[in-house]
Amino acid sequence: MTLSERKIISLIYEIIGDSLSSLLPFNDDAVAIEIGEIVLVINTDMFVRKTDAPQGMAVRQIGQKVIVMNVSDLAAKGATPVGFLSALGFPSDYSKNDIEELLHGFKEACSLYRIPYLGGDTNEADDLVIAGIALGITNKDELISRAGAQEGDLVCVTGMFGKTAAGFKILLDNLECPEYLRNEFIEAVFYPRARLDEGCALAKSRVPTASIDSSDGLAWSLHEIAKASNIGIEINELPIDLSVEEFARLNHLDPFDLCFYGGEEFELIVTIPPEKIVHASAALNAVKGQLIPIGRVVKAEGLFYTEGEKTREIYPRGYEHFTKH
Amino acid sequence: MTLSERKIISLIYEIIGDSLSSLLPFNDDAVAIEIGEIVLVINTDMFVRKTDAPQGMAVRQIGQKVIVMNVSDLAAKGATPVGFLSALGFPSDYSKNDIEELLHGFKEACSLYRIPYLGGDTNEADDLVIAGIALGITNKDELISRAGAQEGDLVCVTGMFGKTAAGFKILLDNLECPEYLRNEFIEAVFYPRARLDEGCALAKSRVPTASIDSSDGLAWSLHEIAKASNIGIEINELPIDLSVEEFARLNHLDPFDLCFYGGEEFELIVTIPPEKIVHASAALNAVKGQLIPIGRVVKAEGLFYTEGEKTREIYPRGYEHFTKH
Repeated sequence: MTLSERKIISLIYEIIGDSLSSLLPFNDDAVAIEIGEIVLVINTDMFVRKTDAPQGMAVRQIGQKVIVMNVSDLAAKGATPVGFLSALGFPSDYSKNDIEELLHGFKEACSLYRIPYLGGDTNEADDLVIAGIALGITNKDELISRAGAQEGDLVCVTGMFGKTAAGFKILLDNLECPEYLRNEFIEAVFYPRARLDEGCALAKSRVPTASIDSSDGLAWSLHEIAKASNIGIEINELPIDLSVEEFARLNHLDPFDLCFYGGEEFELIVTIPPEKIVHASAALNAVKGQLIPIGRVVKAEGLFYTEGEKTREIYPRGYEHFTKH
Repeated sequence: MTLSERKIISLIYEIIGDSLSSLLPFNDDAVAIEIGEIVLVINTDMFVRKTDAPQGMAVRQIGQKVIVMNVSDLAAKGATPVGFLSALGFPSDYSKNDIEELLHGFKEACSLYRIPYLGGDTNEADDLVIAGIALGITNKDELISRAGAQEGDLVCVTGMFGKTAAGFKILLDNLECPEYLRNEFIEAVFYPRARLDEGCALAKSRVPTASIDSSDGLAWSLHEIAKASNIGIEINELPIDLSVEEFARLNHLDPFDLCFYGGEEFELIVTIPPEKIVHASAALNAVKGQLIPIGRVVKAEGLFYTEGEKTREIYPRGYEHFTKH
């Protein structure tokens, strides 16, 4: 694009910024408004087949993923889903079977995340384009923005990273991988899961000071929290999946890169005051989730990974697609 | 398309129908859910440049129209706007100036309809694709579906028809037209207006038994009311604009066709019990709108236009784009 998606988002802020009226800061995971006593959280994420579907992704998987993408942002804000809509653009030669597969994908994911399908709009387009719209509810005390991280807070994640990065290396760069690992990585790309129960449990615990999903990659999402909260972050534990470490070894890749610069992962990243970590952890365990501390919020700007004596800077790199404004 | 948009909508109903949970019937103008005591009305309409923008339409006008399309459906349901979101797909060569123009169009229309811009999502796509999402609120007593028309009700509209049909004849078929008419018709195509104040006033009057907007054309929308309400309609007055009648005369066109088979018009069509017509009319006059009775709901299936001795059938024809499910 002539303008990067990040620049377009700045333009939006510049032109419409003064009339924005979300309860959440501009460019958060979702927007939120008060409807009576209740806070309505709304998210829209567009899926464009050409740029967003890796080769080999089945139409049914696309249908599921559109819902995962959208529900994940509700999860990051701690909102309970109340409805899903879609605006659909189908190419003129799209077959009945493909449309059916897409709808079955919708149905399965709606059922998995207990989000009722409400309706939408249907059009003709050059490529398969799906705007998903997820609605969720919460209350003002439990709504978590990405802007509240405080110095001293622990930075925690809800799972390990790197599987989708490894999956993309296999699918896009044809890297070699033993079969027993391959399936796991490909599944991470084709069947991502949103951490909805975890997000709702964290919100109900009222403990996190900031929350974001990791759909743009761990590094990018950490930078978003840091920028929005005006703080720095120091990571001490690489939250990398063991299989991904093995894949990195086999292919002489840097595990650091696979862990931080992936994307299309839907873990949650939250910041939590250290004295409340036990409470938060218990809340997550109650929904069979896990809370993994990986670092700490610091006053000084910047993002670093420190392991023993070695310190490496974490750059704001990630997937340019799937950006929110 | 291999499947028409109407067939795709049937497929959606077939596959996801059992989990639908809108307060409004499937395929109404919008969907609605209860949020506490309040009814939230949500509408999404996608705009695809290739199929939806007539040649000569400026980007700023596209921005405005996306909001008009979406707000018009809220108007038909009598909902007061509370927020607008957009999922944007931009072609890779889209210029900064074009993006700015689009955003200014958004801003102007948001201001006109007093709908706050909340946020959205930005992507790369082959063509300019915009999914607009409009949120509005009402209460259960005032929500009007398209399914409540009763035998004996008067069929009324909020304005005259045919200007956009004439505009399309000029723009697409190069029909001739004197300058003093031309501007009016082109403006109807490029600067449509939603009947928001009228829709809200009608809802507050609690008088209409059914309501729909006419974005798919007068004939199509009347058929939608008839089908959803399981009734027939007899039209006695052709609600055609005087300038359009003149245009029809000059070009030897049938005014009936221009009136019924246009589209991209955003008048409201409502059905009202005859004893309440004075009340409804007063409600509309209070917001400087007008309520024009054009016919009556009848028991027998079918749609007819009767003028003196002559009766003509009104077919379910209209624009295939901009269909809702």
